[in-house]
Amino acid sequence: MQPPHPKTLADLSALLLQFNADRDWDQFHSPKNLALALSVESAEILELFLWSRDENTPPSPDLRDRLKLEAADVLICLLNLCNRSQIDLTDAFLQKLALNASRYPVEKARGNAKKYDELSSPNPPQD
Amino acid sequence: MQPPHPKTLADLSALLLQFNADRDWDQFHSPKNLALALSVESAEILELFLWSRDENTPPSPDLRDRLKLEAADVLICLLNLCNRSQIDLTDAFLQKLALNASRYPVEKARGNAKKYDELSSPNPPQD
Amino acid sequence: MQPPHPKTLADLSALLLQFNADRDWDQFHSPKNLALALSVESAEILELFLWSRDENTPPSPDLRDRLKLEAADVLICLLNLCNRSQIDLTDAFLQKLALNASRYPVEKARGNAKKYDELSSPNPPQD
Amino acid sequence: MQPPHPKTLADLSALLLQFNADRDWDQFHSPKNLALALSVESAEILELFLWSRDENTPPSPDLRDRLKLEAADVLICLLNLCNRSQIDLTDAFLQKLALNASRYPVEKARGNAKKYDELSSPNPPQD
Repeated sequence: MQPPHPKTLADLSALLLQFNADRDWDQFHSPKNLALALSVESAEILELFLWSRDENTPPSPDLRDRLKLEAADVLICLLNLCNRSQIDLTDAFLQKLALNASRYPVEKARGNAKKYDELSSPNPPQD
Repeated sequence: MQPPHPKTLADLSALLLQFNADRDWDQFHSPKNLALALSVESAEILELFLWSRDENTPPSPDLRDRLKLEAADVLICLLNLCNRSQIDLTDAFLQKLALNASRYPVEKARGNAKKYDELSSPNPPQD
Repeated sequence: MQPPHPKTLADLSALLLQFNADRDWDQFHSPKNLALALSVESAEILELFLWSRDENTPPSPDLRDRLKLEAADVLICLLNLCNRSQIDLTDAFLQKLALNASRYPVEKARGNAKKYDELSSPNPPQD
Repeated sequence: MQPPHPKTLADLSALLLQFNADRDWDQFHSPKNLALALSVESAEILELFLWSRDENTPPSPDLRDRLKLEAADVLICLLNLCNRSQIDLTDAFLQKLALNASRYPVEKARGNAKKYDELSSPNPPQD
């Protein structure tokens, strides 16, 4: 039974587990194959921007529609990979965001695109 | 104010918007740059499987720990891209899963890794 | 015996075959693993441009030095993949350039970044 | 005038420079865009292996034909990137192969897929 309005990553993940089980697809979903699929799907997003100008504006409605379906494919691959690897993606996100907050303290990182190990920061944490 | 236990993609997205706003990072986050970052992060996951045997078993605890942080990076890039592109990722996921359900009907797709346009399916929907 | 000044792709390929044979690395070099390595190496080039402005000027000397070593890695992966797949890369290049010349006739493609199937060209050849 | 039998990377590069000049494509070929195109083309090779078994055998004739054209696309992107970045790819290859020979001495690397910084090697050179 799915919730009437699936919203959490755990809800989406449960929908996907059922979708795959119905089709007996776990046999293809080795972590390595899912990692490969994730790169392929991410490159399909990249291709949408090929030869385009790099503008910091929202995409056109047409591009947004194509991007929307490709973004969903990336999330599907990522959730499948996390399921097969026994990773809680919500937990991973919160853990990484906390790590980034310590790596990129507001006063040092403000308006700066440098990587954390190039910021003049004392003792950046390692991952 | 964030919810005490952020769980939905909308919750995670809101945390990320605040994180970026605090650092004034929107200036770097063009959709094209975020698409590029997404491919780079996905390839870091791929690299974890380089030269490894393709086994359909969960990764070792050590590999899982590294995978967990990289998976979070992919989600962060993807949510940033969706935010900048005015895409609701939960909605995208549900729309794509419904499309996949019609492209890969259980009776045709069961135990089969073929792409939908190679399944002997009458009138597969187009995206 | 290698030629005194290796220059052709066949020369480079022969050097690589010897390098791998000396280390008994063919056992790791399945076509699938080499395809994966090629994507990982290409993403390392992509990472060098992350967050940078998109300027149509040659890279700085420092960036060029890093790019040079990464470009070599891509060629190494590509030649390994072609070797294992019995593909003559020089021949592939000339065949594809001829195909592109017919897909992108000068009068239609001049100053135009559209993909061949979006050019108003009668009967574009298929690959 | 091209040589009757183009064989060196310099020959192929010259053909490509002419191809692009005829179409006035240099305006699109910023190093960043070419790096992006390289990742997209590499992912098209990766996609050919998606869901396949990882077997250390040459690909089928059908797969080889598709791989051949995609491999050419990767080389085209890579040569374009090197041209725009003033990199001599033959020189880069020979420099990197020499570096790899010192990083992966035969006696340590034989039958071993570990990365050089995980080999028990004294003083591995840095890049």
